[in-house]
Amino acid sequence: MDQGAVSDTKPFTPSGIVTLLTDFGLEDAYVGIVKGVILGINHRAGIVDITHGVVLGDIIHAAIILQHSYRYFPEGTIHLAVVDPGVGTRRRPIIVKTGGHFFVGPDNGIFGKVISGSSRVVHITNRRYFLSEPGSTFHGRDIFAPVAAHLSNGVSYEKMGHFIDDSVPINIPVPRREDGKLVGQILYVDHFGNMITNIRRNDIESLGSESRKRIRIMDVIIEGIADTYANKGKGEPVALFGSTGYMEIAVNMGNACRMFGVEHGEERDIKVIVENV
Amino acid sequence: MDQGAVSDTKPFTPSGIVTLLTDFGLEDAYVGIVKGVILGINHRAGIVDITHGVVLGDIIHAAIILQHSYRYFPEGTIHLAVVDPGVGTRRRPIIVKTGGHFFVGPDNGIFGKVISGSSRVVHITNRRYFLSEPGSTFHGRDIFAPVAAHLSNGVSYEKMGHFIDDSVPINIPVPRREDGKLVGQILYVDHFGNMITNIRRNDIESLGSESRKRIRIMDVIIEGIADTYANKGKGEPVALFGSTGYMEIAVNMGNACRMFGVEHGEERDIKVIVENV
Amino acid sequence: MDQGAVSDTKPFTPSGIVTLLTDFGLEDAYVGIVKGVILGINHRAGIVDITHGVVLGDIIHAAIILQHSYRYFPEGTIHLAVVDPGVGTRRRPIIVKTGGHFFVGPDNGIFGKVISGSSRVVHITNRRYFLSEPGSTFHGRDIFAPVAAHLSNGVSYEKMGHFIDDSVPINIPVPRREDGKLVGQILYVDHFGNMITNIRRNDIESLGSESRKRIRIMDVIIEGIADTYANKGKGEPVALFGSTGYMEIAVNMGNACRMFGVEHGEERDIKVIVENV
Repeated sequence: MDQGAVSDTKPFTPSGIVTLLTDFGLEDAYVGIVKGVILGINHRAGIVDITHGVVLGDIIHAAIILQHSYRYFPEGTIHLAVVDPGVGTRRRPIIVKTGGHFFVGPDNGIFGKVISGSSRVVHITNRRYFLSEPGSTFHGRDIFAPVAAHLSNGVSYEKMGHFIDDSVPINIPVPRREDGKLVGQILYVDHFGNMITNIRRNDIESLGSESRKRIRIMDVIIEGIADTYANKGKGEPVALFGSTGYMEIAVNMGNACRMFGVEHGEERDIKVIVENV
Repeated sequence: MDQGAVSDTKPFTPSGIVTLLTDFGLEDAYVGIVKGVILGINHRAGIVDITHGVVLGDIIHAAIILQHSYRYFPEGTIHLAVVDPGVGTRRRPIIVKTGGHFFVGPDNGIFGKVISGSSRVVHITNRRYFLSEPGSTFHGRDIFAPVAAHLSNGVSYEKMGHFIDDSVPINIPVPRREDGKLVGQILYVDHFGNMITNIRRNDIESLGSESRKRIRIMDVIIEGIADTYANKGKGEPVALFGSTGYMEIAVNMGNACRMFGVEHGEERDIKVIVENV
Repeated sequence: MDQGAVSDTKPFTPSGIVTLLTDFGLEDAYVGIVKGVILGINHRAGIVDITHGVVLGDIIHAAIILQHSYRYFPEGTIHLAVVDPGVGTRRRPIIVKTGGHFFVGPDNGIFGKVISGSSRVVHITNRRYFLSEPGSTFHGRDIFAPVAAHLSNGVSYEKMGHFIDDSVPINIPVPRREDGKLVGQILYVDHFGNMITNIRRNDIESLGSESRKRIRIMDVIIEGIADTYANKGKGEPVALFGSTGYMEIAVNMGNACRMFGVEHGEERDIKVIVENV
């Protein structure tokens, strides 16, 4: 992928919206401070939280959430995404421009699912757009927030650093074919206890569309892929393509994660097998 | 109740504020996506979270919270309320107009405490105001958010569907009289561990105002109804009418829920008895 | 400290921003209601949450968070801070003016770290700026929110009450010198499990700058004060001056609180000893 060659030439007019996606949680002042810094530079910014509940340091979780949420914001939006276990190391701060949206954060794969061949990526080096005296533990405050705020003020990203074409990719496990079956896994569990897998609709189509599907997870068999949670009886497990675009294992009126006894942190060890009946 | 006959004819000027009340939690992107959709339609909407921490699927909890919070917002506010375990079934999406406020969400009783005889209710059917290709698992994003945004832009709700007069009521348990006593129950527990009952001031008045009251809960007796938490000693239980208008069982400087050993999910099995001394 | 004598005469132009810092949590409507009240008085207020996750009733936690966050907001910002276990008692509602910022909340020490010799403090007594019929359990809604909103509208704080010079101080434990060592303690634990101590850089300097430092906490020895988390190997404990300005005990790519087995509520019993090697 040569990110520099085919550039994203869509003109950029700031929408005035800055979104935030972090693993900072909400019990400290970290998120509030980031917002204060942004508002200090652009009083009129409209700041929207996507979430601050990314699993601590989980770049895959952040990358997936960002991928399926950013498109719902108007073009011209700046997305600040900071899940940054390597803060203070040599990992680069970057700006990504993709399809009328800007993304600001660390170059650690968090933007791996929004960077495409036509994206442009800038390594941020111009300290003029940082807070004075940036520290080494909170680049969300010292670098990413002020850069996002200046972008929302209409400052060109080209002034903030130089183009690169070797941004760090993200390595999200993909389902594999095995004996005519599709073997995927859980990626994460949402607030409802729904277990979001790494299986997408076209993965299923690769099994052929003529026959009904059967899903196996742990010792449970789920017959067919449903349209909605209520396709199954109350308390029964259901497999469907949810709002994220990925197959989810859910329980109608219930909590799949709890029903399957999946402990936090084990999700990605759990196989989800799809086969033709 | 004929909701159609006596209509709420108060003119409606959008305040520009859209509130959100859901059980979506904050660890996923669901809330952020709803906000993105709203801002895509009305850039200038002022979006305010009431809470996203409604107990999962608990329509009674949502209905009570909505009832005692919406009045604090200016007239002309749109309130999006989505606790929607029946998403994807035939339950209707509705708009409620009550006293200068609009409410948007599923017709499952969530608006049961804000609908009065003069309210008007519209069954939303006009797909022109939906996101294109609405799915069957996330109507908050696909139907309710865009409808709320269009309302906040001043689009008339009459264009979005047709009036109905059979919206689903809410069945919140009410205290009963038994042997000259009042027998109520806990409805929910708040962040402070205060246990909010279903007993209102006029329920108490029905016992007569001449004598002091005694409250029994589990094996504990609380003498009198206090004005504020500090009417009792530190660590002692207290009964008072809190900010919700309902009687609360609290502990001065402490956590009543923990002191009484009430487990999450058991609240509504716990009786609260009020008697004259 | 004579707060009245040397007054803060910086002129005040509202930035339009009102921040919120409370222990209300996010699962109830309390925060939403406060925002509704503010917006009812100033439609154009930009409301920003610092956090609502202060440890219940923990005024020290709130005072520290406020101290290190308010400066990141533009001058002219109103900071509403309500951790108020004494609500309904005779503790006074106050407004503090410090360096171009206003603070509104209870006079219980929560502003102890932002009040300096040049601050001015007003005891709020003018009921004209309260909600009508304020209750005795939710002054955040009935008194502090409307006062903050009127301040953000440009109403002079002098109209809201009278100056006082005896506001309640905050008693945050400070490190002590013992046998040539510095003995501090944990103040609180953040979302990342980092343990924030009460030791500041100039406390360390008092030990002399010529020699390397050694930190002892529980049975663990940490050699040297690092610049960033990644100065140590993955999973190893590290001591550094974090974004709060206080020394933190952290674990590179890990959770220090969990690694040290510190239970919630025990933090302040844990000693942190710094000595010269």
